Amino acid sequence: MANGRNGDDVPLPLVPGRMAVHTACLLQKVGQVVFRLMEGELGEMGLRIRHYSVLGALLDRGPMLQQDIGSYLRIDPATMVDTIDDLEQRGLVQRKRRDGDRRSYIVSITAGGEKATTQIDELMERLDVEYLADITEPQRRQLHHLAQKLSGGDTLASAYDRIRGN
Amino acid sequence: MANGRNGDDVPLPLVPGRMAVHTACLLQKVGQVVFRLMEGELGEMGLRIRHYSVLGALLDRGPMLQQDIGSYLRIDPATMVDTIDDLEQRGLVQRKRRDGDRRSYIVSITAGGEKATTQIDELMERLDVEYLADITEPQRRQLHHLAQKLSGGDTLASAYDRIRGN
Repeated sequence: MANGRNGDDVPLPLVPGRMAVHTACLLQKVGQVVFRLMEGELGEMGLRIRHYSVLGALLDRGPMLQQDIGSYLRIDPATMVDTIDDLEQRGLVQRKRRDGDRRSYIVSITAGGEKATTQIDELMERLDVEYLADITEPQRRQLHHLAQKLSGGDTLASAYDRIRGN
Repeated sequence: MANGRNGDDVPLPLVPGRMAVHTACLLQKVGQVVFRLMEGELGEMGLRIRHYSVLGALLDRGPMLQQDIGSYLRIDPATMVDTIDDLEQRGLVQRKRRDGDRRSYIVSITAGGEKATTQIDELMERLDVEYLADITEPQRRQLHHLAQKLSGGDTLASAYDRIRGN
């Protein structure tokens, strides 16, 4: 058996056999594969998904305290510092101390950051088409609607916040 | 802003703002959260998802060469060795050398392994209900159908096999 392929050179399913009976098993594996592919694409710009999420938050909401970005995106403080460091070094965000509080930083997006975010938005639109070519466009909209209910609903987010220790 | 919550103590969406426009962004994040939650549940049995996938493959297909399990599940050889070691130590699989080939192992599931797999199958059925409580049962079936098309189709699997270097 070649790696990930059967004898006819057709790829094996990402989730084979009895595991594919469970929706949660399908979701975690499809999500993992999409994550890896997206990171590969963003890697060509020297960025990762977490950089995009920070840029997107700042473009959506305007300047934010660094710790508020972390809460908003569920990024732990150490990773948050690294992420902002990367973005600042590339000129995509600016960081300045909040008056009267030496430990608080206000982060804002630069013109270069806005441009990069728009480019990534376009990349993501392309990836939605490329990655989801095995379903029709109406099916993609259906999938989007259902995934958004899971993302925005109370259940998964609350369970995740519990295991993250908050 | 409390971590992952807004002022009314309602959880923030897992994917906020402009990122939620992209289906791939929703899939990767929802998948990541489901993965973390599943690993937490399986961790209480001392196992991880990759252990379950190996047990499931052996129960579905009967004894397999160790390297064939790795290909079937897209698990790299080093992780595969660790996974089989763990399962063997717990008496859930048996490994024996193939006649005439000192480097090939045939792995089979034990009675204890079959029992553990059935228990995990039941756990997964419960998690499908628990994790996906924010959508209706017909919606879950719809989501399952779409996720299975992505898992079993050519697109994601082939792209993933390319970046895995096969």
